[in-house]
Amino acid sequence: MVQVLKASARKLPEGMQVDTGARGFKILLDEPEDLGGTDKGMNPVEAVLGALGACQTIVAFAFAEAKGIDLQEFEVDVEGDLDTDGFLGLSDVRPGCSEIRFNIHVKSSNSEEEIAEFIDFVEKTCPVGDMLENGVKLVRSNIIVEN
Amino acid sequence: MVQVLKASARKLPEGMQVDTGARGFKILLDEPEDLGGTDKGMNPVEAVLGALGACQTIVAFAFAEAKGIDLQEFEVDVEGDLDTDGFLGLSDVRPGCSEIRFNIHVKSSNSEEEIAEFIDFVEKTCPVGDMLENGVKLVRSNIIVEN
Repeated sequence: MVQVLKASARKLPEGMQVDTGARGFKILLDEPEDLGGTDKGMNPVEAVLGALGACQTIVAFAFAEAKGIDLQEFEVDVEGDLDTDGFLGLSDVRPGCSEIRFNIHVKSSNSEEEIAEFIDFVEKTCPVGDMLENGVKLVRSNIIVEN
Repeated sequence: MVQVLKASARKLPEGMQVDTGARGFKILLDEPEDLGGTDKGMNPVEAVLGALGACQTIVAFAFAEAKGIDLQEFEVDVEGDLDTDGFLGLSDVRPGCSEIRFNIHVKSSNSEEEIAEFIDFVEKTCPVGDMLENGVKLVRSNIIVEN
């Protein structure tokens, strides 16, 4: 079943603060001071890295029982390499992350082989991981200019 | 300059709630009740859609003055089509969004043509947009299994 998920972003008066929302939930995103922000929240790339780890975590717990995995704990550490020269127009490198790495810590009574196979499944099934690894068609529907 | 951005995700005891963190900032992600969650926060895909809009917003305000744009307001509405059959293993469709659309609302004294050209620049320069549109290499560094 195709669901249409929605979110919005609106600049707040302070520095680079952006109020993002979805279904009434709010997340304040910002930038560190050295990138012109007021450092009141994660920046958008950090939010994406966190969402990747969260999505893997949710997939793991959603499917563990069906896959015969005793999942007591699941933690993900994610890191991404971002060359700010791309964003700043100082070189031709891409503006986004060139690579994202993740480490997974699992507490389970299953064997390492069973866990490795399960993590293969989690990676393949994770929506955010799929979007980041395989890309998504981005379509600009409309620009409304108010004078 | 290459920066290594970091985030983490850790399952909380309640339902599907995941505590995501970066530099001490926290975001609670969850799933709606029809997907097995307790509906206490955005789900990870919504967080990614919001981060895309926020990233475009930050890029727009960071570069407006240098590009000769009088940017008084900037809002983005983002939506993504996600077929839950992919995630649930009910069909071969991809687990992530097949398409992401966005609408931008700008308040500015510049012309529509100038704004359209500026938005082209914003899209090309936005780190999260680049990552979603062009994909990123995902590398699983390690799995630690604790019994």
